[in-house]
Amino acid sequence: MGVTIYFAATAVWPEFADLLPAALAQAGIEARILLEPGDPAAVDYIIYAPSAALQDFTPFGNCKAVLSLWAGVERIVGNTTLTQPLCRMVDDGLTEGMVEWVVGHTLRHHLGMDRHIINPGHVWDPTCPPLARERPVAMLGMGALGTACARALAALNFPVTGWSRSPKEVAGIRCLHGEAGLEAGLRGAAIVVLLLPKTPETENVLDARRLGWLPKGAVILNPGRGPLIDDAALLAALDAGQVGHATLDVFRVEPLPQDHPYWTHPRVTVTPHIAADTRALGASQVLVENIRRGEAGLPLLHRVDRGLGY
Amino acid sequence: MGVTIYFAATAVWPEFADLLPAALAQAGIEARILLEPGDPAAVDYIIYAPSAALQDFTPFGNCKAVLSLWAGVERIVGNTTLTQPLCRMVDDGLTEGMVEWVVGHTLRHHLGMDRHIINPGHVWDPTCPPLARERPVAMLGMGALGTACARALAALNFPVTGWSRSPKEVAGIRCLHGEAGLEAGLRGAAIVVLLLPKTPETENVLDARRLGWLPKGAVILNPGRGPLIDDAALLAALDAGQVGHATLDVFRVEPLPQDHPYWTHPRVTVTPHIAADTRALGASQVLVENIRRGEAGLPLLHRVDRGLGY
Repeated sequence: MGVTIYFAATAVWPEFADLLPAALAQAGIEARILLEPGDPAAVDYIIYAPSAALQDFTPFGNCKAVLSLWAGVERIVGNTTLTQPLCRMVDDGLTEGMVEWVVGHTLRHHLGMDRHIINPGHVWDPTCPPLARERPVAMLGMGALGTACARALAALNFPVTGWSRSPKEVAGIRCLHGEAGLEAGLRGAAIVVLLLPKTPETENVLDARRLGWLPKGAVILNPGRGPLIDDAALLAALDAGQVGHATLDVFRVEPLPQDHPYWTHPRVTVTPHIAADTRALGASQVLVENIRRGEAGLPLLHRVDRGLGY
Repeated sequence: MGVTIYFAATAVWPEFADLLPAALAQAGIEARILLEPGDPAAVDYIIYAPSAALQDFTPFGNCKAVLSLWAGVERIVGNTTLTQPLCRMVDDGLTEGMVEWVVGHTLRHHLGMDRHIINPGHVWDPTCPPLARERPVAMLGMGALGTACARALAALNFPVTGWSRSPKEVAGIRCLHGEAGLEAGLRGAAIVVLLLPKTPETENVLDARRLGWLPKGAVILNPGRGPLIDDAALLAALDAGQVGHATLDVFRVEPLPQDHPYWTHPRVTVTPHIAADTRALGASQVLVENIRRGEAGLPLLHRVDRGLGY
């Protein structure tokens, strides 16, 4: 009789309406997809996004897994009614999009593109920028996304230092951890990329003190999570020239309110949370793979550790 | 007694004053470097740039090679007094700089960065760009620079088509040649990169007819040579929206004259011939390697084929 899937992220259902059934069929999984829970006890899997109306997972007593469409799960992980196995979304499209945004904006700042894109005085200054191999990048967060971005930047010769909570080893990347590692990483960085998960430990990871460790004029890219940055401290560091530019894709409140100083600060570029988006095609394949694993009694992919919060 | 080197590119001598003697010493080559020719018959090697005053190579009857500091030799190759072996500059720094410029501006256009860099209306439109794997790039010119750029773009998942005069095979790149190949490459390209050498055959390679082969709104990047583009045809194609944007690093006249329409066209970005520059450190090593080869009777690196013009 097959599995019953409750697709609770109804807002994005149109993107998945063709792709998810096709992916299930291709995997040989007979499934019934519901947009309303119906009998909660009959639901085998819940496909979820934090924007969904569903907040109480208690009635879904037989649910084998809650499959998030988002990579970041900080808005779900604290829900005490959610006792079922919880999986994050990690799909190639998400990683590819993130790598493209991070490499693109790193090269934009490295090459000083803005002064050519906006050049009303028609200034012709043929001074070459330094080479990437002379421009150290610090990657804060060495999960799936951070590691992929670090590797792509290293392939373009940027000297990359990766920083993470726990020790890591990645070929071609200098890996640091802990507070002393963070200080060393920031003190040597011309460009800092924030790709940490949002947990209580990472909130305001870039605060006034740590911004002070950066070489004057360093550039910050935040495609991770808005709360990783102490906004007031960043604005002060930008005003003082301690931070040369910040290109921000994520914010504490989104859309970024029209009266937020980031919109008008000459050293800030706002991008509208586009660095990485879940693409329905790749996401459908990841969802189906986890349903296949759940049915076969195999370990689920990308399962969230509630102790760590990601 | 060692070799006698006439450094004719006097304008850039300050950059080489320390690095070239150091590279010679490291290679164990005893050398005398002259900034004036002195006795031309005593000169073993000439280090040259087209901007040098030297135009008559006839007196240098014992010169074993003319070593250009530039990758492009079109301003030298037609000099009939230059009968000595002529070598182009191909150094890692030149290639790295070019790859950084090409990948950076490709990603800039791919991600639509300009609308975030210049966003006076504070528009928040979270529509994601497509992924690189959905954005085909045509690389016109598959020499050392074009091939390096094509590989770097392919590593970021851009589907790359390489076009060259003669047939080539490069792993991971669809390689085309000839007029039919050019048409196929341009018809399928969202972004076109020009890295052809400047020869009589490549002048105006992008003319009105071939610009018409592009899908409407395609983007052109020219870090190669100014005369590869028919400027009037490009301006007309930009006005018509047939070409969506052109980012140009090289021009028929440089610096680009202040009254040139490229400066003010809303769909043109001018960069001041910075895509690839000869860096003195890497260049010194290439020059010394060729002097070492010349002294040892080995074939010179990057020797120009005067029949082909590059």
